[in-house]
Amino acid sequence: MPLIDLSHPLESGMPVYPGDPEVSLSPALRIADDDVAVSRLDLGSHAGTHLDAPAHVVRGGATVDQLPLEWLVGRAMVLQCPQTEARLLRVDDVGALTDAPPSGGTRPRLPFIVCLATGWDQRFGTASMVEHPAVSLGLAQYLWARGARVLALDTLSPDPTAGQQEDEGATSSSAMPVHEFWLGNGGVIVENLIGLTRLPGVVELSLLPLRFRGGDGSPVRAVARVD
Amino acid sequence: MPLIDLSHPLESGMPVYPGDPEVSLSPALRIADDDVAVSRLDLGSHAGTHLDAPAHVVRGGATVDQLPLEWLVGRAMVLQCPQTEARLLRVDDVGALTDAPPSGGTRPRLPFIVCLATGWDQRFGTASMVEHPAVSLGLAQYLWARGARVLALDTLSPDPTAGQQEDEGATSSSAMPVHEFWLGNGGVIVENLIGLTRLPGVVELSLLPLRFRGGDGSPVRAVARVD
Repeated sequence: MPLIDLSHPLESGMPVYPGDPEVSLSPALRIADDDVAVSRLDLGSHAGTHLDAPAHVVRGGATVDQLPLEWLVGRAMVLQCPQTEARLLRVDDVGALTDAPPSGGTRPRLPFIVCLATGWDQRFGTASMVEHPAVSLGLAQYLWARGARVLALDTLSPDPTAGQQEDEGATSSSAMPVHEFWLGNGGVIVENLIGLTRLPGVVELSLLPLRFRGGDGSPVRAVARVD
Repeated sequence: MPLIDLSHPLESGMPVYPGDPEVSLSPALRIADDDVAVSRLDLGSHAGTHLDAPAHVVRGGATVDQLPLEWLVGRAMVLQCPQTEARLLRVDDVGALTDAPPSGGTRPRLPFIVCLATGWDQRFGTASMVEHPAVSLGLAQYLWARGARVLALDTLSPDPTAGQQEDEGATSSSAMPVHEFWLGNGGVIVENLIGLTRLPGVVELSLLPLRFRGGDGSPVRAVARVD
């Protein structure tokens, strides 16, 4: 079965979330001098394609080494909601994709991993990277209630980054309502995936973080396995 | 199916290969001051449980972002060869494990990933960490000829680290004959796995590196899936 890479390359000077540490890869040892090449990696825990553990916004929240591996490897639902502007995604945008089958019956429980495929990964490194579609608190609550525990995105964040949006329907006045709801409940967020718009509706995903002791997040090598 | 973590935790001041960069995790942003916790990660490309790309010892060799994903996720053979001293592992130590079935016939081709389980991960962080069992060039050549492409170990290196061993049978005078043979042929080495001695003979492994552009190696979150 072919594996599809869903991860941005990590390289010196790459775009990062505003205010995060820069990424720098530099030689520590060289073949010419030392017989081996070893690099020094300096980067933020939320560089590139990465995972947010609850400890990213919750004091005393679960850290990246405490997450259940079973949430992060397995079947995922990919909800296609391609966007051309930085609007707020609501339940109506994806509800039909998660509905009960036409034959009726109750809505099936979602897998642990749910991906929202907006296509905004194409803007990574451009000025509009930070003006991205975001997730309404209502949509986050809907996905959580249906069983999702890993909210996986091809944008910088499920919350607005550049402060350009207001969620009229939400009662929260937080600047990061989805982070606070999702991570506050012990869930996991994965940001900056690439290539989601080319995936089928159901795939096997692997979104494993490095095992940083006490870490608030980690870059991940995200891959999909398509049957 | 349960997932088993085969990765050392990454933390500040953890043991590293002699001469490699130290590992340091430190706060870049704090919840109290910045509403989010983000860490600064400073580490070597061969810290903890990690992967060596050919570029680690071969000028112009494949880099970590160029490796075939299909080599790094899938069925693996785990060869149990528990060791209590830092001797050199030879074909005789594992040959019976890779033999043809008793019914005869040709020896089956090995999967891409072959693990040598010495139990030396228990010494990680102790003085004897660097005086570990190593792999003879003959054993490496045997595994490669049988189809292995990813040599996965629970020691610091397939070659002696502290220079305490000589491979009497080898014609190479290199200090790193197995690295030079295996990576020189375009293969991949994974070092510092944990828990291999508790695995069955055949498992599904995931040994994915981060996607460092042009990188010589990368920490990995290694996991096994046991049926």
